[in-house]
Amino acid sequence: MSPEHVRKLDRLDPLAGKRDLFVLPEGLIYLDGNSLGALPVAAQQRAAEIVTEQWGQDLVRSWNTHEWIDLPVKVGEKIAPLLGASAGQVICCDSISVNLFKVLAAVLQMQTDRHVILSQEDNFPADLYIAEGLGSIGKSGNVELKLVDDSGIEAALEDSVAVLMLTHVNYRSGKIHDMRRLTELAHEKGIPVIWDLAHSAGAVPLALDDCNVDFAVGCGYKYLNGGPGTPAFIYAAKHHQDRIRQPLSGWMGHAAPFAFDRQYRAAQGMRQFLAGTPPILSMGVLDAALDVFEGVDMQLLRDKSRQLGELFLERAADTGCLAEFELVSPADSAQRGSQLALGHPRAFAICQALIDRGVIADFRAPDILRLGFAPLYLRYRDISRSVEILAEVMAGEIYAHEKYSKRQKVT
Amino acid sequence: MSPEHVRKLDRLDPLAGKRDLFVLPEGLIYLDGNSLGALPVAAQQRAAEIVTEQWGQDLVRSWNTHEWIDLPVKVGEKIAPLLGASAGQVICCDSISVNLFKVLAAVLQMQTDRHVILSQEDNFPADLYIAEGLGSIGKSGNVELKLVDDSGIEAALEDSVAVLMLTHVNYRSGKIHDMRRLTELAHEKGIPVIWDLAHSAGAVPLALDDCNVDFAVGCGYKYLNGGPGTPAFIYAAKHHQDRIRQPLSGWMGHAAPFAFDRQYRAAQGMRQFLAGTPPILSMGVLDAALDVFEGVDMQLLRDKSRQLGELFLERAADTGCLAEFELVSPADSAQRGSQLALGHPRAFAICQALIDRGVIADFRAPDILRLGFAPLYLRYRDISRSVEILAEVMAGEIYAHEKYSKRQKVT
Repeated sequence: MSPEHVRKLDRLDPLAGKRDLFVLPEGLIYLDGNSLGALPVAAQQRAAEIVTEQWGQDLVRSWNTHEWIDLPVKVGEKIAPLLGASAGQVICCDSISVNLFKVLAAVLQMQTDRHVILSQEDNFPADLYIAEGLGSIGKSGNVELKLVDDSGIEAALEDSVAVLMLTHVNYRSGKIHDMRRLTELAHEKGIPVIWDLAHSAGAVPLALDDCNVDFAVGCGYKYLNGGPGTPAFIYAAKHHQDRIRQPLSGWMGHAAPFAFDRQYRAAQGMRQFLAGTPPILSMGVLDAALDVFEGVDMQLLRDKSRQLGELFLERAADTGCLAEFELVSPADSAQRGSQLALGHPRAFAICQALIDRGVIADFRAPDILRLGFAPLYLRYRDISRSVEILAEVMAGEIYAHEKYSKRQKVT
Repeated sequence: MSPEHVRKLDRLDPLAGKRDLFVLPEGLIYLDGNSLGALPVAAQQRAAEIVTEQWGQDLVRSWNTHEWIDLPVKVGEKIAPLLGASAGQVICCDSISVNLFKVLAAVLQMQTDRHVILSQEDNFPADLYIAEGLGSIGKSGNVELKLVDDSGIEAALEDSVAVLMLTHVNYRSGKIHDMRRLTELAHEKGIPVIWDLAHSAGAVPLALDDCNVDFAVGCGYKYLNGGPGTPAFIYAAKHHQDRIRQPLSGWMGHAAPFAFDRQYRAAQGMRQFLAGTPPILSMGVLDAALDVFEGVDMQLLRDKSRQLGELFLERAADTGCLAEFELVSPADSAQRGSQLALGHPRAFAICQALIDRGVIADFRAPDILRLGFAPLYLRYRDISRSVEILAEVMAGEIYAHEKYSKRQKVT
């Protein structure tokens, strides 16, 4: 792959203009948008507006005048097209963990005579912790969490399973599940499916309605660029909405929150998933951030994402440094999300050496260097340059310097 | 009460200088700091800093370099002195509703042979909704919510009660419970107590440790001025921390979140109450907002708060307009929090007419005009002026204009 060819890819990139919608630090190559998305210019402006004008000047009246009260619904509806969801099925609130708890509890209440939560051994651990937590109080300990490995999921879809809970794109390897097939197979056994879209939303085209998905949860701060810890979202298929009850029944989920009724009466539709008062500043910033997706053809975005990953691997193979790693992600870019996982016993130190040289990647214990490719703001030349830097780090064994094994990285 | 006397009160006010730490709209008298606290200057600066410098420039590295990962603990420790809590017992996270769910579930798991949640009929309804929600999944429906009226609480403290859940300062009337006495009486029957401090923290001196309180939850966006929907907090007495388990066991509450263990292992101390990734922007703003309490003697703040309320009632009595209302709050300022509740069949319209004239109060269904007195930024002259405006609204029956009965107020 010649430098000319890389330049040409950038020149012909239909998404190239989107980069200008982000604030990006000079000289940095940011391959960690799958952990924390970069700052959109519009998000920066919105933060100042919410603080200074809305909170500062209009104060409590902003719940009406700036429609804070409708923000969870508004943001949900903005996310919906990215999920392949028609209106009235997505809402923004709380964290993935809290949302997963709501949805899991709701599903388990529908499945009165089943009690197994089926999931995958290497699912994102937090999802498993939440299932465990629910099991600790639900149905008198009648909830059982059954974990199988990737290849065992289909065989484990038995009549005793109450719900299948999977992460669509694996947080570490990036491997994509076949959402359509697994959802269909599960339904044949009367099993609803909950998909965690943390590493999918905004990176991979999704078709939740079309795949007949029951429930999903996802993250606002990765590929949706909503800022650190911004609220997450829930998708619930319309046909389920009238027959569920979620237990985190706070006042924002009440049919008439300001009537201050003594009895809980769930709101209709997605608002029933709301619990307490949402963090308006964080959520409003996500609202603004989502505007960068305006006019984006998700298939084009996916094409670019795949090409970025392919370019990385090709160039790394060219330089010879790829051979030092185990490719933990699927080799076929169609089978993985917008990330690469490279296994190496010194992955932690390599990651630190890269960061030290302006290439921000991340480390996933015990031995994975994880590289995320956010197609809205990365250029092909960034990928090419990042490989050069990785090759330097590997060739000189620069990572072996003791300073790179010491720091603690927490994300 | 002469204008001279009011001016003198302002001149002698030891907290007068704190007003300069807030951004306050010109010409507005803000009597709704008990719903949404005003914007501290430091919070405005911090918001810009988190967005532009931390997120924008340092990106994901900020979890370490700007210590985002420790923010829930840091903010908790800043709140602790306002609660009369020694270190290691307060953490900032989620909403009150979600936090109450965690704490209620944790307490019910300790109380294996009891299942009654005792609370008050006119507790903040959201707290009751959460108890109801927990009951819908916990212990196979074995949870019973028992509601009594204010005067019946002591008599209802029976051996069957698993937990007493009360709001310290009533959201509507402002009536304060005797925390020490009720906690003591409950303990005599083996009943732990959960206090909701939404309308207390930052307004009323608290002594949680000294009163031997078990658990508490509270709000960051009222008297703590942390901005709309900023995260809430949890207090858990040290002696309980090793023997509880809360069910919203997300990764941030894990002993080693970044080890990605398959099994949940709760962190020691307050971190066990964390669930998902916190909204850093909202929480960081609360962190900065709390600095306005630096050097504040909570007893002096309480004295001022009481005097503001007393001044309001005195002046309103002088003008004659007080006679048109029912005083729903206790007449003795020692018995109420930093707010007044005035009952009137046209309270909604009166509230709208006040807002229209630059006095921001709020309405609580069905018939209460609620006035909050945030002592850090209100002056005695503001109170005096607000009474004059109320008197005008009442004397001219200005509220009877149809435009004031139409708008919908949501907070």
